[in-house]
Amino acid sequence: GAFAAVEDLQPVDQAEVISLLDPKIGWPLLEKLPERADAFGDLEVDTQLAYAELLPRSSLASLISEMRSNERADLYNSIDESQRELLLPGMEKAQREDMRRLSSYAEGCAGALMSSDYALLDAKMNTIEALNALRRAAPNAETIYSAYVVDSQNNLIGVVSLRDLIRARGDELVSVLMNTNIITAQVDEDQEEVARLIERYDLMTLPIVNAMGQLVGIVTHDDALDVMVEEATDDIHKGAGLTSDVGTIKDAAIGLLYRKRILWLVLLVFGNLFSGAAIGVFEEIIAAHLVLVFFLPLLVGSGGNAGGQSATLMIRALATGEAELSDWLYLLGRELLVSLAIGVTLAAAVSVPGVIRGGPEVALVLALSMLAIVIIGCTIGMSLPFLLSKVNLDPASASAPLVTSICDATGVFIYLFIANQIMGVG
Amino acid sequence: GAFAAVEDLQPVDQAEVISLLDPKIGWPLLEKLPERADAFGDLEVDTQLAYAELLPRSSLASLISEMRSNERADLYNSIDESQRELLLPGMEKAQREDMRRLSSYAEGCAGALMSSDYALLDAKMNTIEALNALRRAAPNAETIYSAYVVDSQNNLIGVVSLRDLIRARGDELVSVLMNTNIITAQVDEDQEEVARLIERYDLMTLPIVNAMGQLVGIVTHDDALDVMVEEATDDIHKGAGLTSDVGTIKDAAIGLLYRKRILWLVLLVFGNLFSGAAIGVFEEIIAAHLVLVFFLPLLVGSGGNAGGQSATLMIRALATGEAELSDWLYLLGRELLVSLAIGVTLAAAVSVPGVIRGGPEVALVLALSMLAIVIIGCTIGMSLPFLLSKVNLDPASASAPLVTSICDATGVFIYLFIANQIMGVG
Ligand SMILES: [Mg+2]
Ligand SMILES: [Mg+2]
Ligand SMILES: [Mg+2]
Ligand SMILES: [Mg+2]
Ligand SMILES: [Mg+2]
Ligand SMILES: [Mg+2]
Ligand SMILES: [Mg+2]
Ligand SMILES: [Mg+2]
Ligand SMILES: [Mg+2]
Ligand SMILES: [Mg+2]
Ligand SMILES: [Mg+2]
Ligand SMILES: [Mg+2]
Ligand SMILES: [Mg+2]
Repeated sequence: GAFAAVEDLQPVDQAEVISLLDPKIGWPLLEKLPERADAFGDLEVDTQLAYAELLPRSSLASLISEMRSNERADLYNSIDESQRELLLPGMEKAQREDMRRLSSYAEGCAGALMSSDYALLDAKMNTIEALNALRRAAPNAETIYSAYVVDSQNNLIGVVSLRDLIRARGDELVSVLMNTNIITAQVDEDQEEVARLIERYDLMTLPIVNAMGQLVGIVTHDDALDVMVEEATDDIHKGAGLTSDVGTIKDAAIGLLYRKRILWLVLLVFGNLFSGAAIGVFEEIIAAHLVLVFFLPLLVGSGGNAGGQSATLMIRALATGEAELSDWLYLLGRELLVSLAIGVTLAAAVSVPGVIRGGPEVALVLALSMLAIVIIGCTIGMSLPFLLSKVNLDPASASAPLVTSICDATGVFIYLFIANQIMGVG
Repeated sequence: GAFAAVEDLQPVDQAEVISLLDPKIGWPLLEKLPERADAFGDLEVDTQLAYAELLPRSSLASLISEMRSNERADLYNSIDESQRELLLPGMEKAQREDMRRLSSYAEGCAGALMSSDYALLDAKMNTIEALNALRRAAPNAETIYSAYVVDSQNNLIGVVSLRDLIRARGDELVSVLMNTNIITAQVDEDQEEVARLIERYDLMTLPIVNAMGQLVGIVTHDDALDVMVEEATDDIHKGAGLTSDVGTIKDAAIGLLYRKRILWLVLLVFGNLFSGAAIGVFEEIIAAHLVLVFFLPLLVGSGGNAGGQSATLMIRALATGEAELSDWLYLLGRELLVSLAIGVTLAAAVSVPGVIRGGPEVALVLALSMLAIVIIGCTIGMSLPFLLSKVNLDPASASAPLVTSICDATGVFIYLFIANQIMGVG
């Protein structure tokens, strides 16, 4: 029946099926699944809560206690005080304290990501004892492929891989086998940096330590992958002037989507008034040569497009760690060369329709304006992310619409100023 | 000395140090490193080639044979026929054939990513035999934490984890312990889909099979992480109208950066002529009411910004698998609601400066135009990625500048059309 169909699925797929069912029907199904805590952990928080409210206290307590420590802390974090009353009784004291500790870290840092289900070994154990310890740890540990060695103060002093353990002689000591040259992250480290360490060093697990060097948790490769995807989504959204997280686009409330989008759009309406102001300054030259309006969207658009490219290249390079704040001057020099080449090309491109539509003088104005607009647009676009980063803002906030608006206003001014110089009002 | 300082680093950091040295100085250092093949694999291809040309044939042969199979294939793939002559002699026949096979897959698919260094077990082995087999495989296998079981035709029939093996009794059979419910990917599957499977199922390793179901390789979690970062960079760059890969921004040749950027910029110059054409159609209304020009950048800019947001939300949702082609109509319905709310807000925002600068009639034109421009811009922006996807183009090509240009031309037309209707030329 239904159970046989669901049993063979992976936990995340089981969660997808179960989230379609009423909890009253879902629970008898979920209850019997061998990896039920994993499936439960993959449900949305709202669904998890619906189950929490339905289940008898003892069933709920055992389900919660089977969960991965970090998923349990996530659930605890996303519910309010009264709902916590549902969870807390029935949990063992040690687990309750562990959950409170894990859920105490700020969202977005290593502590909020880490699991406390790691396997510990004693430096004085021999291989046989260590393997026995890992066998005992296996049912509950997130991984036994890396095991951690701490001293009496809980300071992390070594890591042993199961690969090395099963290859060693039975009487070899953990203290000899262990690797003491360990990559770690601090518990308050940004999750993006945690994921970057796991990426750079191809880690399966990254141990997390506190300021004293005590082991407090581990972050696993699968969570690093989730962080990288989440952070990329974040940067992509920011790049379009979207604020805050929206969750799944298909389920997000219309009001949430509206709020996520409106802030920058309204700000930019007022920002774009500067373009209007620049037009206001040169109203006479426009009145005298209406053909200038014909090319206005094209010229300012090109500046925004080129500047947006520069900003995007820099934002991504800063996000992947490929570029750093100190690289700004070097990269600016290169940007000037690239933008000169781009400006010359676009100036040539625009002078063709310029001659046709407005004659040689208009073409000259267009070509010179294009060159200036592109070079200045690129300089602004590439510098803005560095500037934001310098004042501790997210460089990804140098969004395409923001860069475009700045380039628009600058571009309008440059274009009409050059036109005024060359063509005059006469 | 230098060796002691480098020896304790991770291979990727060793590679970073070594790439700063002349190969003549670097090789005596690299040669003695215990994980030298990993460090060598992390060097840029150009640096790898510099070493290949310098090393005595026998040293080169042993270095190459120690490399990870997929990194060896990558090196082989990025060199030309004459340079391959350097590599091939001295390699064992089996390894040479394996390298040729791995390097035969198209870039961007599972085959081009996978490693052939996996551990195989026989279904008839018991736990003790299996553990011995894994001990023997350990020095060369990419991982021994998942071992694969194939039948006599090399068809993949099961996976056993080392975690399960060390917990089992010595006489238990692999055929009983193995998991037969296996997640696999086809060898010609897109690397993005491969990474998505590893992400969804939290896999350490994903077995890759050919059309007949034979095991041909494995892809590991660290490579999935690299793919996700690479694909995100790709989408972020495409979103700004950047074509092709640039590699590292700090090292990329100026000419390459120019080529990566110029195509869309030139195309959009001509695309933006449509905005000019729309202005040309309504030249008389502009001449009669020059105040309209003042608000032109603001109005068309808002349409482009809102449409760009819609496109960005859809592109990312399609990339992460959160939305599918079939969701278009449902999402369009939601988009209309959101864009109506945004349009009303921006219409209210623009009518304030509209009244001040141009009076009530201008404010009415602005408000109505804004509403229409935002709704139409959002509809275009959200639909374009689906349309591109439908005709098998990358939805990420619906870049901000492309959407902006389309919205610009549409916006100019709508704005001046409405102005013409309400205000007339008189
Ligand atoms: Mg899970
Ligand atoms: Mg958390
Ligand atoms: Mg962050
Ligand atoms: Mg890596
Ligand atoms: Mg995990
Ligand atoms: Mg997970
Ligand atoms: Mg970020
Ligand atoms: Mg490597
Ligand atoms: Mg490859
Ligand atoms: Mg791809
Ligand atoms: Mg996952
Ligand atoms: Mg790998
Ligand atoms: Mg893609």
